[in-house]
Amino acid sequence: MVTVIPLTGLPEVQPGDDLAALLGAAIERAGGLEDGDVLVVAQKAVSKAEGRVEQTDDVVGAVLREARAVRRRRGDLVVAETRHGFVCASAGVDRSNAPGEGWIVLLPEDPDASAARIRTALGERFGHAPAVIVSDSFGRAWRQGTTDVAIGIAGMRPLLDLRGERDARGYELHSTVIAVADELAGAGELVMGKASGVPAAIVRGYAVPPGDGSAQELVMPPERDLFP
Amino acid sequence: MVTVIPLTGLPEVQPGDDLAALLGAAIERAGGLEDGDVLVVAQKAVSKAEGRVEQTDDVVGAVLREARAVRRRRGDLVVAETRHGFVCASAGVDRSNAPGEGWIVLLPEDPDASAARIRTALGERFGHAPAVIVSDSFGRAWRQGTTDVAIGIAGMRPLLDLRGERDARGYELHSTVIAVADELAGAGELVMGKASGVPAAIVRGYAVPPGDGSAQELVMPPERDLFP
Repeated sequence: MVTVIPLTGLPEVQPGDDLAALLGAAIERAGGLEDGDVLVVAQKAVSKAEGRVEQTDDVVGAVLREARAVRRRRGDLVVAETRHGFVCASAGVDRSNAPGEGWIVLLPEDPDASAARIRTALGERFGHAPAVIVSDSFGRAWRQGTTDVAIGIAGMRPLLDLRGERDARGYELHSTVIAVADELAGAGELVMGKASGVPAAIVRGYAVPPGDGSAQELVMPPERDLFP
Repeated sequence: MVTVIPLTGLPEVQPGDDLAALLGAAIERAGGLEDGDVLVVAQKAVSKAEGRVEQTDDVVGAVLREARAVRRRRGDLVVAETRHGFVCASAGVDRSNAPGEGWIVLLPEDPDASAARIRTALGERFGHAPAVIVSDSFGRAWRQGTTDVAIGIAGMRPLLDLRGERDARGYELHSTVIAVADELAGAGELVMGKASGVPAAIVRGYAVPPGDGSAQELVMPPERDLFP
């Protein structure tokens, strides 16, 4: 059984805030941390704490500056590749849940490092460190609506590689690699919402692929990308 | 809080099996159904019960027959659009978890109808009907690994449309439509696994968008598809 617990009662995060301390207090209010817990934290909260916000009236300019490459444009929609290699709308630049009118929020510079800092601080506070996923809502090719995906991770690997394992009948699974970090981010979103002011969740009871991974492992390498 | 409960102890599903009855028994073993529960059931189990299996030595021929259009090919990989409009590898044709060597499993003819039949049968058994999601593991553009997504639904809408709602600061959310059916399918996958013989899960504690929706709402219409 897997349980997804919203972390509530956090204040609106401000640049310079100690997000790990705010999360730690929220985790204590929710009953503490258990071994194997995964913390999913919204990119918006991470970006704001890290000061990745900007007041501008040139949102498109900010998008093009944040983008490593523009993949498609249609009207206001810019599908762009970020400096991290993620492909998403507006290179991750967003006006919702920003600090104020005319403000935008940018993706963290290094979301894996953001996750690692939170993980280290929570490990010191609780004596054992959760896996941490920094999540963001991305649109997808071919499917309507966003789902939350992992843009930064620490204390886990993002992919569960079942190649070589066998199904119930003994057939060897040839191409089964599951993006569990993205499924965990999506599970977190179910309790976080967009308008509810819940910027983080604990996923309990899921055995993450162990190791010291990076969300970069989720990025399709250019030579395998069929939809450049 | 959202809880994801694996449904265990189901036999290997055979063509002609009453899948809803098998699921109903598993739900009873897991303690019964609660109001608002979402049942996530793996496409493989649905397809097998519906006889959507085939013995063939021409897998590529079956893929091309199941496809409405081929989007990309690279070696063995065929990214194809199914008759339902879903874009995925091999038009959903798969050899893993098949009835035997040389067998393949095809997607259900009408996965929404499959979900509706299961929902109706469980409603009769338990007196209240869960929302039902038929899920499958799809690869994605730009990201490594599969995540489970909804290919059929009943008793819910697949998209949570927050357009017009406001964030904590009062900013109106302009483009926020969340594919919660896909996030629910992914949450189910976390307890179902590929090799574990758990073909279904209950997601409890999530208030689905109410209504009588279709997984077709998740399909990007051609005029908005930037990656044809």
